[in-house]
Amino acid sequence: MASVLELGSRVKEASRLLGIANSEQKNRALAAIAEALWERREEIVEANAADIAAGREAGLREGLIDRLTLNESRIAGICDAVRELIRAEDPVGIIESGSVRPNGLRIEKVRVPLGAVGIIFESRPNVTVDGAVLCLKSGNAVLLRGGKEAIRSNKALVAIMREAAESCGLPADCIVLVEDTSRESANEMMKLSGILDVLIPRGGAGLIQAVVKNSSVPVIETGVGNCHIYIERTADAQMAEAITVNAKTSRVSVCNAAESLLIDEECAPSLLPQIAKALFDKGVTLCGCEKSRALVPQMEPATEEDYATEFLDYRMSVRVVPDITEAIAHIGKFGTGHSEAIVTRDYAAAEKFLNEVDAAAVYVNASTRFTDGGEFGFGAEIGISTQKLHARGPMGLTALTSSKYRIYGNGQVR
Amino acid sequence: MASVLELGSRVKEASRLLGIANSEQKNRALAAIAEALWERREEIVEANAADIAAGREAGLREGLIDRLTLNESRIAGICDAVRELIRAEDPVGIIESGSVRPNGLRIEKVRVPLGAVGIIFESRPNVTVDGAVLCLKSGNAVLLRGGKEAIRSNKALVAIMREAAESCGLPADCIVLVEDTSRESANEMMKLSGILDVLIPRGGAGLIQAVVKNSSVPVIETGVGNCHIYIERTADAQMAEAITVNAKTSRVSVCNAAESLLIDEECAPSLLPQIAKALFDKGVTLCGCEKSRALVPQMEPATEEDYATEFLDYRMSVRVVPDITEAIAHIGKFGTGHSEAIVTRDYAAAEKFLNEVDAAAVYVNASTRFTDGGEFGFGAEIGISTQKLHARGPMGLTALTSSKYRIYGNGQVR
Repeated sequence: MASVLELGSRVKEASRLLGIANSEQKNRALAAIAEALWERREEIVEANAADIAAGREAGLREGLIDRLTLNESRIAGICDAVRELIRAEDPVGIIESGSVRPNGLRIEKVRVPLGAVGIIFESRPNVTVDGAVLCLKSGNAVLLRGGKEAIRSNKALVAIMREAAESCGLPADCIVLVEDTSRESANEMMKLSGILDVLIPRGGAGLIQAVVKNSSVPVIETGVGNCHIYIERTADAQMAEAITVNAKTSRVSVCNAAESLLIDEECAPSLLPQIAKALFDKGVTLCGCEKSRALVPQMEPATEEDYATEFLDYRMSVRVVPDITEAIAHIGKFGTGHSEAIVTRDYAAAEKFLNEVDAAAVYVNASTRFTDGGEFGFGAEIGISTQKLHARGPMGLTALTSSKYRIYGNGQVR
Repeated sequence: MASVLELGSRVKEASRLLGIANSEQKNRALAAIAEALWERREEIVEANAADIAAGREAGLREGLIDRLTLNESRIAGICDAVRELIRAEDPVGIIESGSVRPNGLRIEKVRVPLGAVGIIFESRPNVTVDGAVLCLKSGNAVLLRGGKEAIRSNKALVAIMREAAESCGLPADCIVLVEDTSRESANEMMKLSGILDVLIPRGGAGLIQAVVKNSSVPVIETGVGNCHIYIERTADAQMAEAITVNAKTSRVSVCNAAESLLIDEECAPSLLPQIAKALFDKGVTLCGCEKSRALVPQMEPATEEDYATEFLDYRMSVRVVPDITEAIAHIGKFGTGHSEAIVTRDYAAAEKFLNEVDAAAVYVNASTRFTDGGEFGFGAEIGISTQKLHARGPMGLTALTSSKYRIYGNGQVR
């Protein structure tokens, strides 16, 4: 089996050719990939069935089996997403800015691909296709390292995509799979600085933290969202309830779902029981501070740990706070810098919250669930960055590019 | 002595206050810093004299002693640079883009400070002031860790700057010095992920590589420049000579100086002897491949190591290449992605070089020495990034900021 270093070097090499391919070439390859995945769907389903059988044998939970499963309708969805991407704007080559300097030098800043991208992900095989085609569209070659549960599916998907890309004149090595799914292979990827230009972990908090801590390749950190709804004392009662229920329950397993409710002590007596009832009706369990439990006795006591937890489930922590300053301090202590919302009718409170809360997306009177590339109008989404370097918040294709200065002279020296 | 973790936490805490200070407050603090540094120059010179005495005792080279030295005129220069920065535009709060979504949500993308910045640097105490004030202007609190040779000077400078900042109502902890100059303290800084938002190493290649390899805090990599001049076969002879001599000799110790000359074999016989002579006249020693040595017998033989080396000295490697494709491949192999130039009269060659060379700045018919924040019209410069994430090329104050989405709703749920 080729070493991770060899595989990375092949990706790096391919990235030079892919980086100068134009949009037409890349879009033709995307069309060929969508077509090939659909035509060879039986092959994919067969490989996937072997993964599922092995997973069942290994005692995988049904939830994981479900995430692992590829059937005809899911493959159709994947192919639709690839075709959708053809219509997205190619960020490569966009001239962002430019000027002529006093000495006559003309300077242009243009978007260029990052180059060689590594993606480490867990069990969902749709990420294999998604990661590969987002990279291809933005001119990046990609080294994919998925979980062992999906290895047969991933091999089939990558083989089909490589053939399709090659049939359109792109190097097959613009999409390479690390077939070794040991922990060691992930560690090797994290050491490929100078070969990989960026590493993107996609998966749970444990995976992401391991990559952030150990990678010498620059990392784009995505996804962990311990999001809060803060109900300020002037909030409209109906709106506060609607936003809280939506942010908590419209989809509990996603990073932009709310995990914690902060409520001003002035309005808590009148509002908290009503909101708690609405949440209970949706099947949410609540854990809270003493003041909130005095108002809603069905609530469990909350620990510091609860306030720090991204439940991704029908569970929410609650805290009564004396004022907005305390609410902002709580978010500063427990938040993960993802999405935070205030419900208020007070201008100064809205401004203070927007200015002082340090997060990728800060909302006034709207649900945190809107933090999403599609909702923001970005088209394709790579993920939601919770770091401050490079990209923050929902990342469109542009987040997979860098810039380069092109300078036109006629003999200037300094 | 406070631990690095405690110091980092104080910086993080101060960053919340500094992050919401407006430009007037920050500019007042900068003016106070410039004034205090000048008024208390004797204190600084005295501390510096103790560093110099200790350095001499420890046998520091005179070059290093010179870089370490602060006298009245250098302090005046430092104060001028601080005052200059007052006039620079504050990037914080700039609205980069915005739109109203179909559901009525209004989304703004605004520039915000990174937060807590760590800078690890070597002996030059002017970096202490430079790093502190660039961070302050862009709303970032800073944890500074300089070299042991300058510790007394750094303590004096930081104490003065902290007092001045505090006198203007900013938290003193927006500028904190790590007084422990052991290797351990640098390693501790690299572990402060979640506390420091970014770490910037400023110094030699060894320092930078150590930080890139070991830091779990996101790093902005600056500075290493193994820059090439490629003389294409159609190049104007005069221009080729002028650009090569300027790029190599106008200042040999800087990262945008050229280290390597590539010349097309078609024009090498007529051009290389003339250019070599001009370089010899400036005191440059050359090392080259066999073909170039056949044309210029005074040249030493070059090793692979020579081609990979950033000499930062009056030395240049030379290679005769068969064509532009080979020149681009050589740069891909040995370049550090900093600045690369082609001298040509051929349109297609210029386009090919601009498109295919992967570097922060790519030049046609100009010296690589222009890669500089001032020359690019950016005002203050943090350094020159040679990485692809976040910022690439000369970095102005904007590179010390991140973005944040502010979203204004009226009850939207999803």
